[in-house]
Amino acid sequence: MARAPVVTPRADDFPRWYQDVLQKAQLAENGPVRGTMVIRPYGYSIWERMQAEVDERIKGCGAENAYFPLFIPEAYLQREAEHVEGFSPELAVVTVAGGKELDEPVVVRPTSETVIGEFMAKWVQSYRDLPLLLNQWANVVRWELRPRLFLRTSEFLWQEGHTAHATQADARAYAQRIHREVYEDFMVNVLAIPVVVGMKTARERFAGADNTLTLEGMMGDGKALQMATSHELGQNFARAFGIEFLDDAGVQQTAWTTSWGSSTRMVGGLIMAHGDDDGLRIPPRLAPIQAVVLAVRDEGDVVDRCGAVADELRAAGVRVQLDAKADVSMGRRATDWELKGVPVRLEVGPRDLADGVATLVRRISGDEERKSAVKLDGITAAVTSELDRQQRALLTEATALRESRTTDVQTLDDAREATKSGWARIPWDTVGAEGEAELAQASVSVRCLYRADGSLPESDDERDLVAVVARAY
Amino acid sequence: MARAPVVTPRADDFPRWYQDVLQKAQLAENGPVRGTMVIRPYGYSIWERMQAEVDERIKGCGAENAYFPLFIPEAYLQREAEHVEGFSPELAVVTVAGGKELDEPVVVRPTSETVIGEFMAKWVQSYRDLPLLLNQWANVVRWELRPRLFLRTSEFLWQEGHTAHATQADARAYAQRIHREVYEDFMVNVLAIPVVVGMKTARERFAGADNTLTLEGMMGDGKALQMATSHELGQNFARAFGIEFLDDAGVQQTAWTTSWGSSTRMVGGLIMAHGDDDGLRIPPRLAPIQAVVLAVRDEGDVVDRCGAVADELRAAGVRVQLDAKADVSMGRRATDWELKGVPVRLEVGPRDLADGVATLVRRISGDEERKSAVKLDGITAAVTSELDRQQRALLTEATALRESRTTDVQTLDDAREATKSGWARIPWDTVGAEGEAELAQASVSVRCLYRADGSLPESDDERDLVAVVARAY
Repeated sequence: MARAPVVTPRADDFPRWYQDVLQKAQLAENGPVRGTMVIRPYGYSIWERMQAEVDERIKGCGAENAYFPLFIPEAYLQREAEHVEGFSPELAVVTVAGGKELDEPVVVRPTSETVIGEFMAKWVQSYRDLPLLLNQWANVVRWELRPRLFLRTSEFLWQEGHTAHATQADARAYAQRIHREVYEDFMVNVLAIPVVVGMKTARERFAGADNTLTLEGMMGDGKALQMATSHELGQNFARAFGIEFLDDAGVQQTAWTTSWGSSTRMVGGLIMAHGDDDGLRIPPRLAPIQAVVLAVRDEGDVVDRCGAVADELRAAGVRVQLDAKADVSMGRRATDWELKGVPVRLEVGPRDLADGVATLVRRISGDEERKSAVKLDGITAAVTSELDRQQRALLTEATALRESRTTDVQTLDDAREATKSGWARIPWDTVGAEGEAELAQASVSVRCLYRADGSLPESDDERDLVAVVARAY
Repeated sequence: MARAPVVTPRADDFPRWYQDVLQKAQLAENGPVRGTMVIRPYGYSIWERMQAEVDERIKGCGAENAYFPLFIPEAYLQREAEHVEGFSPELAVVTVAGGKELDEPVVVRPTSETVIGEFMAKWVQSYRDLPLLLNQWANVVRWELRPRLFLRTSEFLWQEGHTAHATQADARAYAQRIHREVYEDFMVNVLAIPVVVGMKTARERFAGADNTLTLEGMMGDGKALQMATSHELGQNFARAFGIEFLDDAGVQQTAWTTSWGSSTRMVGGLIMAHGDDDGLRIPPRLAPIQAVVLAVRDEGDVVDRCGAVADELRAAGVRVQLDAKADVSMGRRATDWELKGVPVRLEVGPRDLADGVATLVRRISGDEERKSAVKLDGITAAVTSELDRQQRALLTEATALRESRTTDVQTLDDAREATKSGWARIPWDTVGAEGEAELAQASVSVRCLYRADGSLPESDDERDLVAVVARAY
């Protein structure tokens, strides 16, 4: 007898599958104000793991965390022309505070470029103060008319890095370093998402940037998700805010700035890149719970022995949880842990103990059997090597998916056709700004540009660039 | 020749000393919108250490982190009468968003009691769902007319815990557990601030609470600072939001809730409790930089050898930084590290290396000499034991200060007199609500009540309670 599906199958209705996973794995819900989001404990524990991994890499690149205010004077945004134009339609504005109408309304930050620009101008005096490498973990607000949890919400959580440099070359190199050493490394090696790294076209660039780098991930339905971006802001913000310094020859110079961000959107990407018809699948290096030890029955010393196994795993650095809820049916508990995407489940009953084994159930089976018996003696080594195996298997699977659903095409017509089910690679010389506008009519966008050898171009004017085009979230 | 003071001496002007320390140790600055704050990297690194220590303890008490929206419908606040009355004058209100006037203005959260109450009502159905133990790290906004950095700002960062329980006894026990195992333990054993734990009077209670527990710290000028609070909310919010559950007999019951919070205000408390006329003094267990290895000159292998010492300390778990800025004068560098309150400074020059020693400079000298020579061989053990010693010395010093500036009195007149320079202990039976109002005329408040044996009272109606009264931040 086939069991009823726990979530809508992806092939039937991918958006509904996504909603089902959010709800049944208890990840997030809509907040009471339109477009806002409540992140439930399990969803938040995933975000906390992302934060820890990203934060460690950011600090490894020499940036320091700081905090700038939620409220920004309206006038600040207006100083950089493209910036205000880009953000105006999305702003939330406080007009009443402390029981009074404010003389000057304040904007809830949609990003902190402007206020950080103002303070960089105060803090930077000499070339000795450069580079100034700052990062902030914060909430930002961009009013959304068509919100979707984690992907597009009126309020979201993110980190935004902001740096100032003495030269354009130094700014460019740092933006690229963050892009590779923080974002790409995290996404490929922790999230197991084989992102494509490239530059945005002028049309898709950040408001006020000279150049925007992106990492694009393929979701389970073949659409693209922009997972993070890094911007070269040139001297646009430095000029608008007066970030100037005396160089080592005593000459006044204008600084070059960058900014770069990743957000709770990555949780949406994780769900859609790896989830299957049983729910979430979380790569072991990210998983807040890597293994669960499940006492099949509360009989004899089963629960105690399960606790001992969990302690042994924990001592070896495995993030483990004990499930001793023997009054809930095994089927229900198994389904719940599958929904939550925990990589390894160890089921232990009285018979297993008598045989000195546990049943290891793999969430990401790959080429292996889904279940197998493992000896309790030496179980930690078995679990840690299984976690490594699943990490690799998930990246392999996601890479195979991306390759199988990416088509090389030569015409806009073929690109439109290919993007019905995946991505298309097409010569940028064939597309150009005009072709890009034409594709946009069919809700297809140029996700990024890169050179034939995969490296980053200097500008979108270069010949022989490859464009990845797709429908996107 | 006496050197010019780096900061205003505390005895001359304590508020100005505080401002000087904030600025010269590069902790924080005023934001562009009135009452907001920019937390600079060094200040933020202190907050990150506080977060890590508090978060670990909260998780140890079984609560899980989650995230609720910044924006709250105005109507939510109005459901609990005392709550809306308490917060109305401080609210910031968004009336325009996405380029349009909103039909229903939304409030920027001053605290999340109401929105969390709404979701608890959805998530709690049965006694099996209780206790529900949530915590959130977030920014909140309470419009301030007389802001002071870290102590009272229009936006501040905090954690707010919110829990729901099946019985009043369970709610009370959990609020007390958080108060002792999270806040008191952290403040005494990490912050080295000998807080007094007690309950607030009805006048000083949180808006909507049945009972508020507090921890009061004495600052360097003898004033009190409320360092954190834990509230028993009774059934007030549960009734307003319908947090109900079926008990194990199948009867519908109303839950009992608690909330508890600590904020960036603790950074202000740290500065004012331990700072001296040379700047900050940070207890070693908290310090983001516990030791700095300072290369006196860039000569021969001095910088390399300093790097090796730093590596050795880091490997032993010491948070250490190398200062190889040999082009800046020793006096300037020493002054800067003193300002920043780093507990241990190791000065290493060519002569020291020849002798196989470093000069260890203590920020918190206590009974020890300020400087002494320590052998490089075995320096890690010397530094770690010095860090332990300074941690103890700082708590001892702060406890002695508190005791020396606390006076036992029997009359309101004597209380007013005593609170000019410190705290007064006075029988609560002598004060009462009327005496409390009288003291308030002189800007003196009842900080907390406790029993003669130091334990927490059940209510402020108990006889023979001790009241601690003081001027406060």
